[in-house]
Formats: sequence, structure tokens, C-alpha cells
Amino acid sequence: MSVQRSLQTLSKRASPPTTALTLPHHHKPRIWQPPVRSLASIHDGTVVPPVTQDHVGRQGPTAMVFMNMGGPSSTDQVGDFLSRLFADGDLIPLGPLQNYLGPLISRRRTPKIKKQYAEIGGGSPIRKWSEYQASEMCKILDKTNPETAPHKPYVAFRYASPLTEEMYNQLLEDGFGRGRGGRAVAFTQYPQYSCSTTGSSLNDLWKWRQRLEDPKRNANLSAAEAEGTIRWSVIDRWPTHPGLVEAFAENITAKLETYPAAIRDSVVLLYSAHSLPMSVVNRGDPYPAEVAATVWAVQQKLGFKNPYRLCWQSQVGPSAWLGAQTSDTVNNFVKAGQKDLVLIPIAFTSDHIETLFEIDKEVIHEADQLGAEGRVRRAESLNGSPTFINALADLAGSHLRGNEVCSRQMGLRCPGCKNEKCLQSKRFFMGSGVQGERGSEAVTL
Amino acid sequence: MSVQRSLQTLSKRASPPTTALTLPHHHKPRIWQPPVRSLASIHDGTVVPPVTQDHVGRQGPTAMVFMNMGGPSSTDQVGDFLSRLFADGDLIPLGPLQNYLGPLISRRRTPKIKKQYAEIGGGSPIRKWSEYQASEMCKILDKTNPETAPHKPYVAFRYASPLTEEMYNQLLEDGFGRGRGGRAVAFTQYPQYSCSTTGSSLNDLWKWRQRLEDPKRNANLSAAEAEGTIRWSVIDRWPTHPGLVEAFAENITAKLETYPAAIRDSVVLLYSAHSLPMSVVNRGDPYPAEVAATVWAVQQKLGFKNPYRLCWQSQVGPSAWLGAQTSDTVNNFVKAGQKDLVLIPIAFTSDHIETLFEIDKEVIHEADQLGAEGRVRRAESLNGSPTFINALADLAGSHLRGNEVCSRQMGLRCPGCKNEKCLQSKRFFMGSGVQGERGSEAVTL
Repeated sequence: MSVQRSLQTLSKRASPPTTALTLPHHHKPRIWQPPVRSLASIHDGTVVPPVTQDHVGRQGPTAMVFMNMGGPSSTDQVGDFLSRLFADGDLIPLGPLQNYLGPLISRRRTPKIKKQYAEIGGGSPIRKWSEYQASEMCKILDKTNPETAPHKPYVAFRYASPLTEEMYNQLLEDGFGRGRGGRAVAFTQYPQYSCSTTGSSLNDLWKWRQRLEDPKRNANLSAAEAEGTIRWSVIDRWPTHPGLVEAFAENITAKLETYPAAIRDSVVLLYSAHSLPMSVVNRGDPYPAEVAATVWAVQQKLGFKNPYRLCWQSQVGPSAWLGAQTSDTVNNFVKAGQKDLVLIPIAFTSDHIETLFEIDKEVIHEADQLGAEGRVRRAESLNGSPTFINALADLAGSHLRGNEVCSRQMGLRCPGCKNEKCLQSKRFFMGSGVQGERGSEAVTL
Repeated sequence: MSVQRSLQTLSKRASPPTTALTLPHHHKPRIWQPPVRSLASIHDGTVVPPVTQDHVGRQGPTAMVFMNMGGPSSTDQVGDFLSRLFADGDLIPLGPLQNYLGPLISRRRTPKIKKQYAEIGGGSPIRKWSEYQASEMCKILDKTNPETAPHKPYVAFRYASPLTEEMYNQLLEDGFGRGRGGRAVAFTQYPQYSCSTTGSSLNDLWKWRQRLEDPKRNANLSAAEAEGTIRWSVIDRWPTHPGLVEAFAENITAKLETYPAAIRDSVVLLYSAHSLPMSVVNRGDPYPAEVAATVWAVQQKLGFKNPYRLCWQSQVGPSAWLGAQTSDTVNNFVKAGQKDLVLIPIAFTSDHIETLFEIDKEVIHEADQLGAEGRVRRAESLNGSPTFINALADLAGSHLRGNEVCSRQMGLRCPGCKNEKCLQSKRFFMGSGVQGERGSEAVTL
């Protein structure tokens, strides 16, 4: 069933109660429909066929969209970046005063954060790495998955250019959607799912999809354009993909080799992930458990040779966040005489301010001031790791060949979720046209 | 090197700073020494040889000690049980007023908890299950590990009979220690390590070992008795042992089969573990991450067919605990129309008050009052599961054949640890006689 029809079905249903946390009974993600059906559904002869989907039996081109938070490429962009960040209630829930408090906080923090970006070379390398990873992955996919080739790389950032909106307009310009159908994969670059990260990106993608492709929201669309919309599927989490685990293990092993062989197994591995406010943890966000799953998988791969801990970094503001804090952890260990520590950024795959500034220039600097003698070090971020890029291609390749539009887990909202955008966005990505057999209960949503 | 010598070595060292969180550099757990060496070290002809270790080349008997929190076997024992529980600063840190506040709280809670035990049949089944599991496991070990046979089952509870002290005295009576050596394995029955649970049991075991077998603490011991002490090793965590994972998956699958086939994959799995105070989480306790590792492994085994969440139960008192809370989670889902939920106790292996009363009589009862219509159910605890008992035997069998006295991870204290008992107890169980090559740093502890 096409997305268009799903939405028609939906609009005929009774209004769901706003508290709904789960998709209907029997609601599995819709099964992937080959593009042939979508093309067949274009009944109007005037429709421009998709420029690149011109071979019968060939499903490409396929848009591969890397979603991430992004970062300012230059210090000039810091202000805009922060103002988008603090405007995002999915990431930083400031309540009904978000539109007032967000700009206030971001303006106050801009000078300080500008300095931090200046210290790491004037901007974040996340765009460079994302574009490189996406395009290298697509080259591999063109060989391993010829049926969906060519694979075209896109990047959609949440708080910096290229924003979701820019990416979506580029897709339309490139011949996807607007009557021409075409498949796009939203591939989160956060290995572990949080409503604050992947959830926020998906809500944003859903918002722009509505604005740009939904005839109910965009009166400029012709009937034909409204029919052949982009068909989305989502890679929403991959915390223990074997290639990801191997890539982490390689970088850890490389860093361990910088220590004398005799003490190598006694170096403590400190896996560090961005923390979450306890309010998010306590509403049931899946992120802490998925980060722990990654850590366990990497430790397993390394044979549990080294003692380790998972800790959490980048807490800000006065509210309670999940700990133990990375900086405290390092300081406590160093003060106690355990100076040989390797920090491993485990929830981001590319370098960004939290590795290049917070860990390298703050945490490690402070450790050295406490007498760590350069023995607190950081494993490289995955960045251009060929093992990592192969992992991305393996994940995407399986997804393209598979028939699921997202994981089973994505349909389940957090037990404490109050965000109706999550319901709508999940419903869209799960493809909500499927009615459960328990009729009335299918509309408990 | 025998434990005795380790301790002599230790006592000759410089006093360690009290902040030490880690064992010395290069400090791996001592390698397991076959009992022959220990017997050889008995130079005094008057030593009574161990009654059951009388075959040359045979290493048995081996004491297999199941450690757990325990529970009152009858309502009469509830008062004592609670007073021990609230006296344990490792479990419930009440600060310097522990000795005053503990009895106060436990006395106040006794009538209520007595009623709860009365409702589940007058007592906890944990002793029955522990004794059954330990003895069944030993039967298997006698076949799979003849070199360490016979394997003798023991149970050591932290807050109920048989207490660690009783178990230790029984060991001595049975011919272990006091000049006769012999091997004992402290096998935690908490699959995931927390300082509040396994850590507390090990600190207690170490305390009684000092009182009953350390000549510095027990002037009644003869030189010969002091020499042939019990040689301990520890199975300190096993969150993703394949047999454990399979046993959980079996019980979940069995419970899922009580739902109509058409909706079976839409039932939400709610893994529920005992919560921890945030003060314990924030000092770096490894438990939340290890529980998450179990959940991920079970979900992997089940093929991620069902949506799921990890939630946390049994919070008490006014301080902050790790969430989301199990009861809130169930209520929120039921209110939102997701009534098909299977609760899975994931951090205890036997039934106890938290399953039989809290989940069965409180959480599920409340869900039914909200209209769950009996569709919120609980997967059985592992109890007498043959798959589980085989897993225990597999774990213990590998440990007995292996040469490690505990995991690498056990030597690392929590980064925020302030409990000097942890240092001493870890040092004892790791066998601290081994000096690292970086001489002076070996005493940074």
C-alpha cells in the first residue's frame, strides 16, 4: 500500500485519543513495496517519469539519507546552530516557554561555544565526515546491491546545514517524489536510538515531508504530484552491528598499542556517551540500554581483557542527568592512581565538539593537571574507518534487500511520552494503513 | 601463591592511600593454583589432611556456594530479615546514622512486609529454589567435571538463613579450611553485578573469612590451621551467558503462547529489574549497563520480533531512583490502549517478593483495574528450569576448568566508590600478592 493510500485510510479513521503510546494491535511495520507498484499507480499520462528510474525491473536510483545532529562548519554558524538546538523540544525540553527560553540560552552560550569551535580549527568536521561516509558507502552499495543502484548520498542535519529542509528540496530537485515516486532510506547515524536524537530527526523529516509532499498541507501540488511521493524507509538503530563493533574494537586496540605491552591489559577502558536528562531516561527512552548493548558487544569482541566502565558526558544546566559523569570518572581514577585510561566515544561515529574539545581539551587536560602524565588518551572516532564504512554498507545493503520499513521497536512510544509529534511521525514511518484484526482496538491510538 | 602468602605480602607493603579505586597496574586476577600446591605447603606433620581430598591428583571435593540476598522462609523471620537489610550500607546507604535509622525503618516496615509474605504463602521460596538449583547443578558437575568432584552445594544468603556466617561454619565443619585447604567457588546468583548485591555478598564473605580463617583476626587458630585456608574463587557476573539467555527466551516464548497467534508479535515485552538509587548509579555501579546487556541478548535470541522496554521496579523512599518505573510503565501503556504486556523479571532468577507480590499482586492487579482484562501477564521466573540449571552447570564447569579467580572487571572499583571494604575485599578475592612491574605504582592502591 502506498504511503498516499495509508494516509487516506488514516484520515477516514476515528480520531485517536491523544494519550496513545503504541501503534495498533497487530501493527507491524508495513512491508516494503517494490517501486513498480508505485509507478503503476500513476494513472495520469502527463506525469513526468522519474528521470533516473527509467529501466524496467530496476528499482534505483535510491536516495541514502544520513541523519545526524550536525555542527557549525565555521564559527559564524555557531549562533544559528545553537538557536536551532535550543528550539528543539525533543532534545532540550524547556516546556511552554521553549520559544522564549531557547533563544535566550542560545544567545548567552554563543560566545563561549564560538571559542570552543575556534580552538578545534574553526568548525565541526561532522559535515565533511558525513558526506565522505555517505558517498563511500554508496559506492560500495552500487556494487553489492545493483538492483537498487545508483545509490545517491544525502546528508540531513538537525541543527546545521544541510538541514532536513534543504535535503528534502534537493531530493525533489533530483527527481524523487512529486509524481515520480522513488525510494529514500533515512539512515540514522546515531547507532543507538534516543527520542532526543534519531527521534527528533525523524520528527523533523516527517514535518518536512508533510510540508513538501502532503497535498493536505501543500495546495500547490497537482493530483499526479501528490500521488507519486517519495517512499521512505528507516534504519532507526544498529547498536550492535558486527561491523560497528569491529570498527570500535580496532580503534580501541590501536590506542591500547600506544601503551607498553606489559601494562596494556590493565588500562581501564572508559566508554563515554552523551548523557540524557533523567526526565528523558525516566519516561523510558531506549538510549541508555542500547548504549550499554554496544559497550557489552565491544567488550565481548575484545575478550573482556581490560576492566571498563560506561560513563556519560556533556551534562549541562541544573537538572539531574544520567551519570556517572565522564569528567568525574576520569578525575577520580587519576586521583586514585589509575592513570592509564582510554576514553572511547561510543555514541557518536564522527568527531565533533564533544570529542575534539570536551574530551581532548577539557577532560584530558584536567587529567594531566592532576598528574596523569599523558596516560589518559582517547580512541579515535570512527570517521573514515574503512571497517566502519563497510559496516554502513552492510547495514544499508541488508535493509535495501529486506522488506521492513523500520524496526519493530520503532512503533513503540516511550511509556511516559507526551509528544504527539512522535505518534504522528511513527504512524507515518510505520505506514499506518494496516488495520488490526481486533477492529475497534486498532483505533485505540 | 596461596591466599595466606598473598596476605603476608600485603601486610609488608606501604599503607595504600584510602582513595584507591583500582587494583595495581598489571594486576590481573591471580592464576588458579591446583590444590596439590596447597597440600604441599603444609609442612607441619600434625596437620589433619582434608577428609575428602584423599586421592592423589584429584582436586575435589569442591564447595559450590550460591550467594543471593535470600528472604524470610516464614513471616516470623520478616523482622530479622528487614533489620539485616536496612543495616547493610552496601545495599541501602543511610550514612553515619545507619545503625540508628536502619532498625527504625525496618521495625516500621515489618508489619506491612509481613502481610505481603503472608499473601504469597507465608514466606519466600528463594531458599527452596536456591538449594534445589545448587544441588541439581552439582549433580551435573560431578559428571562433567570429575576432576573437581564431588561438588558440594552450599547457599549463603545476605539477609536470611542460611547466612554467610552459617555457610562458612558449615564449610569448616565439612572439612574445608583450617589446615585442610580445599577449594570453594563463590557463585553469585545475581546475573548482573551491582555493588549493592554481589558486591555486598562478597564483602560479607570476605568479612567472615577474616573472622574465621585469618590468624590476625582469630587468635584460636594454630599455625597449621592458619596455613591451609579455603581457596576461594568467584563467579561474579554472567549477564549474557547463552544458557541464561535461552532460559529467559523459553519462558518468554511460553508466556507469549498464551496470547492469540494473530496478536502474539504485537505483545510488548517489559523487562523489569530491581531499580537502584541514582546515588549508586552515579557513582558508576555497573549494574544498569549489565542488565541492559541481558535484555539485548534475550531480544536478539527472540529475533527482536516484539517491541520491548527495560524498566525498573521496587523503588522506595524519597530519593531519586533509576526509571522508568515498572508500575508507571504498565499503567501508561494500559491507559493508552496497549494492554497486551508480558512482564519479565530479568535480574533475579528465582521467585521472590518482587515477583510474587509486587508484580503479580500489585502491578498486574492495578493494570486489571485500569481495564487490562488479564492481558498483562508475567513470564515465569527461572526457578527450576532445566535450561537454567544446565546454564549454571556450564558456567561453573568452565570456571572450574579455567584459571581465573574472578573477572577482570571485578578488580575495578566504581569511580565514585568511597567504601574501603570494597578495596579490601576485592584485593582479597583478586589475590593481591602479585606486584606489578612498575614497582612504586603497584602500591598506589
